[in-house]
Amino acid sequence: MSRFFSEKYAKLEPYVPGEQPKDQRYIKLNTNENAFPPHPAVAEAAAKAAKTLHLYSDPECLELRKKLAERYGLTPEELVIVNGSDEVLNFAFMAFCDRNTPAVFPDITYGFYPVFAKLNGVPYREIPLREDLTVRAEDYLQAEGTVFIANPNAPTGIALERDRIEEILRANPDHVVVVDEAYVDFGAESCIPLIRKYGNLLVTQTFSKSRSLAGGRLGFGAACPELIRDLETIRYSTNPYNLDSMTLAAGAACLEHDEYNTRNCRTIAETRDRTREALAALGFEVTDSKANFLFARHPEVSGEEIYRQLKERGILIRHFRTERIRDWNRISVGTEEQMAAMLRETEKILAGCR
Amino acid sequence: MSRFFSEKYAKLEPYVPGEQPKDQRYIKLNTNENAFPPHPAVAEAAAKAAKTLHLYSDPECLELRKKLAERYGLTPEELVIVNGSDEVLNFAFMAFCDRNTPAVFPDITYGFYPVFAKLNGVPYREIPLREDLTVRAEDYLQAEGTVFIANPNAPTGIALERDRIEEILRANPDHVVVVDEAYVDFGAESCIPLIRKYGNLLVTQTFSKSRSLAGGRLGFGAACPELIRDLETIRYSTNPYNLDSMTLAAGAACLEHDEYNTRNCRTIAETRDRTREALAALGFEVTDSKANFLFARHPEVSGEEIYRQLKERGILIRHFRTERIRDWNRISVGTEEQMAAMLRETEKILAGCR
Repeated sequence: MSRFFSEKYAKLEPYVPGEQPKDQRYIKLNTNENAFPPHPAVAEAAAKAAKTLHLYSDPECLELRKKLAERYGLTPEELVIVNGSDEVLNFAFMAFCDRNTPAVFPDITYGFYPVFAKLNGVPYREIPLREDLTVRAEDYLQAEGTVFIANPNAPTGIALERDRIEEILRANPDHVVVVDEAYVDFGAESCIPLIRKYGNLLVTQTFSKSRSLAGGRLGFGAACPELIRDLETIRYSTNPYNLDSMTLAAGAACLEHDEYNTRNCRTIAETRDRTREALAALGFEVTDSKANFLFARHPEVSGEEIYRQLKERGILIRHFRTERIRDWNRISVGTEEQMAAMLRETEKILAGCR
Repeated sequence: MSRFFSEKYAKLEPYVPGEQPKDQRYIKLNTNENAFPPHPAVAEAAAKAAKTLHLYSDPECLELRKKLAERYGLTPEELVIVNGSDEVLNFAFMAFCDRNTPAVFPDITYGFYPVFAKLNGVPYREIPLREDLTVRAEDYLQAEGTVFIANPNAPTGIALERDRIEEILRANPDHVVVVDEAYVDFGAESCIPLIRKYGNLLVTQTFSKSRSLAGGRLGFGAACPELIRDLETIRYSTNPYNLDSMTLAAGAACLEHDEYNTRNCRTIAETRDRTREALAALGFEVTDSKANFLFARHPEVSGEEIYRQLKERGILIRHFRTERIRDWNRISVGTEEQMAAMLRETEKILAGCR
């Protein structure tokens, strides 16, 4: 920290993205990337857009908003396009939280929420997950703050039914409820159909996971036009040209071939469920994940040990240091071959520890 | 504004980007885009990167930082890569200004500075330009705040000599001085060579103008490693994956062919100087711009009138409503043909007003 750094941020602990070591090639099961590349039309559209990069991208993202609106039965005014859903989450912390309106979220959830809260000087309350790591909707009925629910939750993968989320929305008419659906397309119920019913609902999604566009940086928020306008006020005061032309074109092409993405999501969900059974057969406790990752712990071998030994064997998974989940690991669902390799090496590690 | 919007931002007036009307094709001389497309290698590199978008981009932007460091004789630790220089400017307002450390900048300068100040709850002091629209370095010697100097300044295009900026740096050892060099490559002196001499200097640049990458969203900050680390703390707490893989690849390819960009800048500067003379011959007062735009007013016809009539004739230039410069217009320097068209139509407009 330099002597010029504002004391406002002196205690800020930045988010730590999943490691991307460059020392060797790994089977990367640590950042929840999609196992499949985007549809070939995506690269074609991006390549075409790359030829006119001397011209600014459209700050209104109009073409993409129209396509996205059509895909979800919305109007463009109900959508804001962002540089990955992290950006719209930060905008939501800015727009809908402050000193008097704390943020409320589970103790175990996406690790960026407390960072955004601290960044924006927003107090926050963490509500413990139940012992079985599920979110208890009842705990959010008098939230007295802006609620952030990742659904499915990260890193557990466990989803909440839409009816439960509706209870939270109804019980908090004077606060915004943000439903972060980064992983929803792998098997949970989206709340997008509810945005016309609840003026306090903001749904955020990303193209990074289910649409194979992690490297393209594209996300969106869906809400009633009033909430979207608030987010646009923030966006236009921060970085109106947050999206580049190639990403906008890639996103539009992605939507034109959305059945390809849907098929991949189904394949990944099947691989996930088979891998869950295989891990259970090896003695792991595994949550009922509806995301493109699994969350597992072994009764005899520590999470850190498994993480470390898998890394030595060229396989990266995600280990968290948070006390409550330090015995668990998050394993992204890759291809069948990658999962077979992970299971094979895990079995050897367990054998070596006995 | 919804009833949920934080009162913190109730008075925020977002930045207004140059208009991008979609009703017809215009000769666009209103957003300072480069007249030339990027080198063909840029589109090739981006197209290649587009094929693996299911994988995250490198949050450390290491390859690009290395190339950029080599280009400027720096180390990667002296550079932060951002989504257009607006992003690093906002980070600088966050990191180096606060309630006790105001921002200090000219009354006529890049219109985003007051927006960033308001966004971050930072008080700011605007120092009037001299009557001739030049920045007076002496006015910044007891800045008592973080100084933001666009050099060349926008929308005047007038540059300050590096020696003058050194005076400001020396006189304010306890405050950061940000030199925003968005337009520096068209004829002004860069302060990048000074970053090892002054620990309080942050230079920001963009690939949008001189490197024909406006639609790619790429910028950078150069400073001593301590300041860069502060900015990285902010970046990793905001959006660590702010750069997509295609933009990173495009930027690297751009640097590999930087002589192409340099040549284009020279051509644009020549066109600018010829156009300045032609405008002067039409009776305009024109500033001594070192940027890729001209700033001009006519003693007889109002800036708004010229803007409006040119728009009717299919030519967009930028008119500002700010009182002090409402008689002026900013005209981006396009191709020779575009400038000839602009001059031809302007001449007709003037004839019609007599």
